[in-house]
Amino acid sequence: MAEKSPPIALTVAYDGSGFHGFARQPGLATVQGSIESALETLYRAPIETVGAGRTDVGVHALGQVISFEPPEPVSADALSRLVRSLNALAGPGIVVRHARLASPEFSARFSATSREYRYRIVDGPVPALFLERFAWHVLAVLDEESMREAATYLIGEHDFKSFCVTQSAEGKPTVRRLDSVEVYREEHLGEACLTLRIIGSGFLHSMVRVIAGTLVEVGAGRRVPGYAADALAARERSAAGPTAPAKGLTLWRVEYPADVWL
Amino acid sequence: MAEKSPPIALTVAYDGSGFHGFARQPGLATVQGSIESALETLYRAPIETVGAGRTDVGVHALGQVISFEPPEPVSADALSRLVRSLNALAGPGIVVRHARLASPEFSARFSATSREYRYRIVDGPVPALFLERFAWHVLAVLDEESMREAATYLIGEHDFKSFCVTQSAEGKPTVRRLDSVEVYREEHLGEACLTLRIIGSGFLHSMVRVIAGTLVEVGAGRRVPGYAADALAARERSAAGPTAPAKGLTLWRVEYPADVWL
Repeated sequence: MAEKSPPIALTVAYDGSGFHGFARQPGLATVQGSIESALETLYRAPIETVGAGRTDVGVHALGQVISFEPPEPVSADALSRLVRSLNALAGPGIVVRHARLASPEFSARFSATSREYRYRIVDGPVPALFLERFAWHVLAVLDEESMREAATYLIGEHDFKSFCVTQSAEGKPTVRRLDSVEVYREEHLGEACLTLRIIGSGFLHSMVRVIAGTLVEVGAGRRVPGYAADALAARERSAAGPTAPAKGLTLWRVEYPADVWL
Repeated sequence: MAEKSPPIALTVAYDGSGFHGFARQPGLATVQGSIESALETLYRAPIETVGAGRTDVGVHALGQVISFEPPEPVSADALSRLVRSLNALAGPGIVVRHARLASPEFSARFSATSREYRYRIVDGPVPALFLERFAWHVLAVLDEESMREAATYLIGEHDFKSFCVTQSAEGKPTVRRLDSVEVYREEHLGEACLTLRIIGSGFLHSMVRVIAGTLVEVGAGRRVPGYAADALAARERSAAGPTAPAKGLTLWRVEYPADVWL
């Protein structure tokens, strides 16, 4: 019998605009589907993968983590060759950034201890150009101080029911813990943007996008910072702001305990 | 007779991948053509424009400057409305960032005192993803120290004949002055890149791209830093490195004397 292979964790970046989301769906271009098809070509056998976060249509990733069990053991030396082969096979819009060997019980999804998302906004009358595919353009000039104040209400463990888009959340637990919600200005490719950096243990469906939509209501002066606290307390979707567009969102990084890596 | 209008200088950004270069060409999508057609719609009369730099097919701009004389005087108050109207009319891939009133003799091209270009390179085995349209991917990991040393030979006034792509440069002056050639690492959209920042009074055709191709030869270890000096001295195109791809290049900024602005 063949030696059991340790799982491999791929760190994968993708441009969400070319995919029908992360999760495999028959007949549609998805990130998971593309990676699994590249792995199948490589190993000449179907390979099932697990992703750390199921990103929606149009959502980007810089540091999505995808785990799988290779049919034969892979040595540490062979990992960089694996990365090159997958990049040759995965097609446009996906880049495998690196590969690591993980301990036997590793799962990209269940071993994750925290996830970081970033949401980019280009504000003011001048539209985004280079950032057009990677940011939400809002006409108002946003006041980041009031957005920061609103963000403080969201940090910690709360019932985020108002910030969840899926109807099927009924009955399912909607309590999540946010470790950090930062609001700051930065520049990419010469264009200025306002970035929300949100770190938490887990996220409900579209939760970061509803947080972005809610904070923009405050930043644009249409709501006071306490709106975020009221939205949490109401525990119904209509109490929070609009769902911000997918294209501004990037799954930035997934954290694991240090001892999962071989 | 109508009062003569002061010229207007537009600062314009564009994604070069959607255009057949800057300069208007009948029947082709060009940046100048798109701006002139937007101006014609706005003023109901054909308007001729002058650009600070003729960028090639695929070259981007963050701070191209385009001047024109409006058929009727525009007040300073009306400039932000002009920017909004042009952005509504100019179509995808172009953003007018601002508009200023200039003194009567102003020309975006001839009044410019210096131009800044930036060239982005993603180096190493992992390809660019978000930067794919905005950077040149080279497989070698580049040594920026040796590139910096090579760059020092290019600073100052030199005959850049070896760094000019056009054959028709024969007989035309090929002496130019570079004020600064910087080589540094930075990050955009989470991806690391090596950036060349080049400032000079004027540039020959594809000069920045040949400089980039030459410095990459040095950074990859295929040439020693003195290669840049030898290339200059030879005064023939074959003595310098390859012409780097257009997509890594951005016309970043154009400088004018402070007294040209009204």
